[in-house]
Amino acid sequence: MGLSRRGLLHRIAGLGGYAAAYSAMVDLGLLAVPAKAATPQLPSDLGAGKRVVVLGAGLCGLVTAYELERAGFSVTLLEARDRLGGRNWTVRNGDRIEMAGESTQSVSLSEGLYMNAGPARIPSHHQGVLGYCERLGVPLEVEVNASRSAWFWSAASNGGAPIQMRQGLNDTRGHLSELLAKAVRRGALDQDLTPEDREKLLPFLKFYGDLDADLRFSGSERSGMEQLPGAGPQLGVKRAPLPLKELLANEQLGQTLFESQLNMQATMFQPVGGMDRIPAAFERAIRSPIVRGAQVLQMRQSPDAVSVAWRDRASGARRVTEADFAVVTIPFNILARIDNDFDAPVRAALAQTEPGYSNKIGFDAPRFWERQEIYGGISWVGGETNMVWYPSNGMRTARGLLLACYASGAVAKRFAERPIAEQIAIARAAVGHLHPGHEADLSNPAVINWSKIPFSEGPWPGWVGGGRVAEGHMEDPDFRLLNQPHGRVYFSGSQVSQMPSWQEGAVFAAHRSIELIAQRVAEATGAAKAPRA
Amino acid sequence: MGLSRRGLLHRIAGLGGYAAAYSAMVDLGLLAVPAKAATPQLPSDLGAGKRVVVLGAGLCGLVTAYELERAGFSVTLLEARDRLGGRNWTVRNGDRIEMAGESTQSVSLSEGLYMNAGPARIPSHHQGVLGYCERLGVPLEVEVNASRSAWFWSAASNGGAPIQMRQGLNDTRGHLSELLAKAVRRGALDQDLTPEDREKLLPFLKFYGDLDADLRFSGSERSGMEQLPGAGPQLGVKRAPLPLKELLANEQLGQTLFESQLNMQATMFQPVGGMDRIPAAFERAIRSPIVRGAQVLQMRQSPDAVSVAWRDRASGARRVTEADFAVVTIPFNILARIDNDFDAPVRAALAQTEPGYSNKIGFDAPRFWERQEIYGGISWVGGETNMVWYPSNGMRTARGLLLACYASGAVAKRFAERPIAEQIAIARAAVGHLHPGHEADLSNPAVINWSKIPFSEGPWPGWVGGGRVAEGHMEDPDFRLLNQPHGRVYFSGSQVSQMPSWQEGAVFAAHRSIELIAQRVAEATGAAKAPRA
Repeated sequence: MGLSRRGLLHRIAGLGGYAAAYSAMVDLGLLAVPAKAATPQLPSDLGAGKRVVVLGAGLCGLVTAYELERAGFSVTLLEARDRLGGRNWTVRNGDRIEMAGESTQSVSLSEGLYMNAGPARIPSHHQGVLGYCERLGVPLEVEVNASRSAWFWSAASNGGAPIQMRQGLNDTRGHLSELLAKAVRRGALDQDLTPEDREKLLPFLKFYGDLDADLRFSGSERSGMEQLPGAGPQLGVKRAPLPLKELLANEQLGQTLFESQLNMQATMFQPVGGMDRIPAAFERAIRSPIVRGAQVLQMRQSPDAVSVAWRDRASGARRVTEADFAVVTIPFNILARIDNDFDAPVRAALAQTEPGYSNKIGFDAPRFWERQEIYGGISWVGGETNMVWYPSNGMRTARGLLLACYASGAVAKRFAERPIAEQIAIARAAVGHLHPGHEADLSNPAVINWSKIPFSEGPWPGWVGGGRVAEGHMEDPDFRLLNQPHGRVYFSGSQVSQMPSWQEGAVFAAHRSIELIAQRVAEATGAAKAPRA
Repeated sequence: MGLSRRGLLHRIAGLGGYAAAYSAMVDLGLLAVPAKAATPQLPSDLGAGKRVVVLGAGLCGLVTAYELERAGFSVTLLEARDRLGGRNWTVRNGDRIEMAGESTQSVSLSEGLYMNAGPARIPSHHQGVLGYCERLGVPLEVEVNASRSAWFWSAASNGGAPIQMRQGLNDTRGHLSELLAKAVRRGALDQDLTPEDREKLLPFLKFYGDLDADLRFSGSERSGMEQLPGAGPQLGVKRAPLPLKELLANEQLGQTLFESQLNMQATMFQPVGGMDRIPAAFERAIRSPIVRGAQVLQMRQSPDAVSVAWRDRASGARRVTEADFAVVTIPFNILARIDNDFDAPVRAALAQTEPGYSNKIGFDAPRFWERQEIYGGISWVGGETNMVWYPSNGMRTARGLLLACYASGAVAKRFAERPIAEQIAIARAAVGHLHPGHEADLSNPAVINWSKIPFSEGPWPGWVGGGRVAEGHMEDPDFRLLNQPHGRVYFSGSQVSQMPSWQEGAVFAAHRSIELIAQRVAEATGAAKAPRA
């Protein structure tokens, strides 16, 4: 579906750009409104007599198995780990964290606490994931992705004291509005704005920046109060505004816009009880065999079938599963090392896929941040730990899981090279920049370096975020090649989507693989069974 | 406490303004950091032998009774209505809405649905209300006050089509950033910015507005996508940006900043099950007699006592309650009509207190807005209905309470003069501007005109919002006078606070009344029992 739609777009887009062309096509009825991870609607007997082996029981593999078995395919799901979910992994008291080259961590967390080691939030527009939560009965709650009471910190700004989100956001807007109003009044933008524009813009800027009658910014209640308006004579006292210079000196100032990223915008969700409630729900719903501890050793295909040899990690026994098609969600960096008979260009593409890096560190702690009126949301510290992410569950109870590091890319690579104890010490110190004295309240750390996690060896392909291209705009030839069916093998997983760092990418990928297989089967068995996308 | 602190501030504030003075005082240890609705800590026998009659069982009256009985006072709470809570009122299936001059409405709502007719959200910094929720065991959940998928609408803009919040916010910031970058590059702000400032500002503006390499705004993924990045070849397609002129033409553009108001900033809360879970919890906790249906007829005081005559509305019998002190939370506009022996200036001040206006209209509806990815938050339509507020409870269930009007001030006064059926029709039509075709999905309207609600006759004093002064900055002489004890009578309720439209104002007011009474009693019985504020 994607390619033909894009082809049509390419031809129409000449004049007004893609968005205009797309709108025009929607208006003309040429396209359904807007493309989502639409669930494939397949006849229930489409796959009768056809076997599919799905490699990897992450979200993509689970969706693939769930949908194909409902379309009559005979599905086998092989998973190398002892648990389902892949990167969707929730760590609780008593769990073990095994990482290559490190001692195994035994997780010790207070009752009810958990750490989402992988994905931890679902935006409103990720209707693929949300749809499965609804269909499979996974209760959701609001994930508070931004709190105005949280902080951002830089040693280079504000004397090393953190700046509160509400002050950073609103003081910045105030200063910029004052500057723009000055420029407008000086006539510096007369070539860009009509007199009517200017007449409307100035009062808007007054409101936008909370400027005074002279269009100057002298602080705003939006930025927080030194003293709240109270009873009777207790008037509100505004905070003094921070100078623009001080704001710009804080390298984390841009994080006041973190929540402006499309995938970070309110309203966001999380499953009640941990993200792994999603794979748990799939496990309940899937009727096909799911084999845990099945490590793939070898892949071969003939014109008629695909053959997967795997090792039962518990017994050490070698087994072989034959199928008509294989859907492979194994990370490309790992798949490249598995014995296979793929064509040379495919092997080369796999070999060139380097993994990314990402780390998380959680602590069990009393909710000291809530005594500072921070309920959920994120504070920003930069450096190798990047953020402090406050829990959206269990607010106003005694203890919570404080995520004191979530960083990806080059800094995460460096960080993961440090000894675990040093990683913990750095994360602890970063919390101290925001919450002085509370470093000592942090106990029972759990450290995740995704590059060291067996069967993942990275959180996503290295092209995401600081890699070769921005997420959502992947046109790399290797990526394109791995997006095509290779004989009876369908490469899948969020790695073949434009959103490999999001669960929605896994759903997109699953639906695409399913659609390609369904089309192929339908074409082979006659047009009457053609699927409706 | 308030007055003396303010007095000190007045003397210190000469140089740097209040905020600086306040900061200096905090630094010098002269003030505790920042003033909140601190709960009075009173000796448990302070009020032994002293009787207090509290008039009105809204939140202020409930807090007053709760705290004073714990300090040993003998408390009687008189409430004119048959329910507690005052403006804290949650309407459910089977409830009746009585309004002066209107037929009584019988509320019919689906199972589990409710409408908070009065207050409906609690900000993170309202620690007075939040503290009582914690102490009294009222479960809270997140109130989603802003969704980026909601809309704002004006007939004068965008061809009458609504603009999505994410597009309004981010396109506006994009255009303004481009304009400011132009002005900076043209040297129009050289007198305001050092070369170093300019060097830091331009890259920040590029990020702030999501500008292209030439510092021009050509749309942003933050504003939403025509097509999401999907599987494999399906690239993301940005929405075309709306022209600045089109944005400024929308009178509701300012509502993209609604959530920037201090009292509207994330994280916000609501009690699970309805706001009236708070008065219900107070009712469980208060041991003193609470008399419902007690309509105050007359107030008299002597040097030794205060006497309140009231009518038992059920039996019609006249009763008298004597006490050492009266705390009066009855709205001033109603109190002015009650037979009293107050001094002439107090009577004049009461007589001059006009009530404000506020309306709410709720509908029972299938959650069509959630099919448009709106989960909680508010859309803005202007006019007499102002907003469409989506429920934060029961997300992803079948039906919800859609609040299709919440407006206050002059437009609310006009609106309340319309026949109820006309109010409903206007609210229904406003929903249609945002959600065409879904007007027909709205059933079982419940209409609240606070100016017609017996024993309230308005939502708050008329000086709030568009009245004589802005909330938080009330220095009116009448207001000041009514904030002083009048013999044995203490005027209270959120109306004597700087936040009369918020429950926190009621808590502030209660704590102030309690403190004044406690000081008086402590002074009369000796310094040993002096309260700690």
